[in-house]
Amino acid sequence: MGCVVPDKLLRMERAGSSASRPVMLAIAGDSAAGKTTLTKGLVDALGAHRITSLCVDDYHRYDRVERKSLPFTALHPDCNYVQIMEQHLQLLATGQPVLKPVYDHDTGKLTRPELIEPTEFVIVEGLLPLHTRLARACFDITVYLDPPEHIRREWKVKRDTTKRGYTPEQVLAELDKREPESEAFIRPQRSAADIVVRFGPIEQRHDPPDTPLSAELTLCPTIRHPDLTHVFRETDRRAMHLRLARDEIGRPVEQLHIHGYVPREESQLLEKAIWAELDTETELPSSLGHIGDSARSEPLAITQLLLLYHMLDSVR
Amino acid sequence: MGCVVPDKLLRMERAGSSASRPVMLAIAGDSAAGKTTLTKGLVDALGAHRITSLCVDDYHRYDRVERKSLPFTALHPDCNYVQIMEQHLQLLATGQPVLKPVYDHDTGKLTRPELIEPTEFVIVEGLLPLHTRLARACFDITVYLDPPEHIRREWKVKRDTTKRGYTPEQVLAELDKREPESEAFIRPQRSAADIVVRFGPIEQRHDPPDTPLSAELTLCPTIRHPDLTHVFRETDRRAMHLRLARDEIGRPVEQLHIHGYVPREESQLLEKAIWAELDTETELPSSLGHIGDSARSEPLAITQLLLLYHMLDSVR
Repeated sequence: MGCVVPDKLLRMERAGSSASRPVMLAIAGDSAAGKTTLTKGLVDALGAHRITSLCVDDYHRYDRVERKSLPFTALHPDCNYVQIMEQHLQLLATGQPVLKPVYDHDTGKLTRPELIEPTEFVIVEGLLPLHTRLARACFDITVYLDPPEHIRREWKVKRDTTKRGYTPEQVLAELDKREPESEAFIRPQRSAADIVVRFGPIEQRHDPPDTPLSAELTLCPTIRHPDLTHVFRETDRRAMHLRLARDEIGRPVEQLHIHGYVPREESQLLEKAIWAELDTETELPSSLGHIGDSARSEPLAITQLLLLYHMLDSVR
Repeated sequence: MGCVVPDKLLRMERAGSSASRPVMLAIAGDSAAGKTTLTKGLVDALGAHRITSLCVDDYHRYDRVERKSLPFTALHPDCNYVQIMEQHLQLLATGQPVLKPVYDHDTGKLTRPELIEPTEFVIVEGLLPLHTRLARACFDITVYLDPPEHIRREWKVKRDTTKRGYTPEQVLAELDKREPESEAFIRPQRSAADIVVRFGPIEQRHDPPDTPLSAELTLCPTIRHPDLTHVFRETDRRAMHLRLARDEIGRPVEQLHIHGYVPREESQLLEKAIWAELDTETELPSSLGHIGDSARSEPLAITQLLLLYHMLDSVR
């Protein structure tokens, strides 16, 4: 028992030419870190006929009632069919359909599975898509969403009370219960990401609560990022910065900051620079940056555009 | 899109040595042909820790309500996830677990999938396990259950009225509706079987209705069968016969007849002869031939023993 194909073999096999193998993008992060919002913009930009998205939280091994008598939460790998998730990621990565299990967040029940047929691009979001080496080997681009904890707690309380019928006290108690497993299993995926995205207030400043969130994108040289130095060389941009840094584990990285109040004309310069490097016939999508039905965030739009860049760059 | 591994590659790969690859036995046949009864005896004989059994009718694409508005019945390949069935058979054949869909025969609904982890032997029974070339390539031994239609109709009426809550009229109407698809998709699997099993009355005789059913086993030389000629050479057995014949498509085959009224001492000679060829330490199972909770059939016991022979022979 083990993997269908060893990960090296899979990597080699995927490196070979084949039109039917999709580009695989992972978006990992804790509950309510913004995975769905980020994913939705990407699917809207290229269209559901080109992008397939799925959530690996569907691979829960136990339903909500069963979990009550178990010593761990839904975040724990033992609470998920990790081996089946790996198997399905391998199948999708090699262009095969899978019959994916379905976890119903409304009822907390496991229900009828659904057929997923990979298209040109596959986005896999969820709690643990980067948990194992074999799972990681299935992806071309890996992203970790890393908002500051107080922001994520705020988002989770808001979502779970409005959409999933919990009280704020229940949500906060659940967050506390999950914290040891977040630390043990979710956050370590950060170091496996090519891009770490941190939406939040700028920590050194003390902007009023309504100030739009900024984004800090950590770009690891594990994949080739677009060269953006010229955008920042010309003039001193006040609301965007690009700098060299070391990440948590000491690797040299680029860090791109986009302030929440960045003027549209300034962010458009960056968008055009990213898109120009693609040399693509696909037009620069205008639908990015949406949060819910009305609000728009320039930092979110640029984050999505950068991910689209990488997805389209992978098929060149 | 297509197969995970081409069938030749799979065959070659499986021919290599690996302790963790199970022996795969297919039992195909129409609804109520006796697949479950045959399978149960095999599982009881070796124990659930050594045999995993599954039914590929769980790969239904539509539930009972959805099927009502469709132009085909559950027998039609388009009514089943055939490609996913092939994929799962390949995974099982190479020792991998699968998350198998589940069709609930009581409610007619598709429900929560279940984890199947292959053990030493895997029995796959159902309507269409031998429908495609790739599916067939996954098996070491293939069986087709081929009772005369009037016997099968009797069995189906009895089962579906007592266990599935239908009236006899409903069952007979369903049988008529299914007939074109039985002809098109189920019965062609007969020619893909290494062993065709036909339980029924002996057609030339006119035994009274209570006479136990006989079995005619057609043994195709697509796998190596035990040499039984010496059992039949010694004396003229009245209740068992072995003869050379041609099958429906003209191939030379052996046909083994075991009459329903065969005396226990005579059938035991055959059982011992089959088992002796195995040279196994596993004792000749005494639990074979059970139909339901009380009745016992010598022809069924011998059929099961022959399948056990092949399963154990495959791991030698």
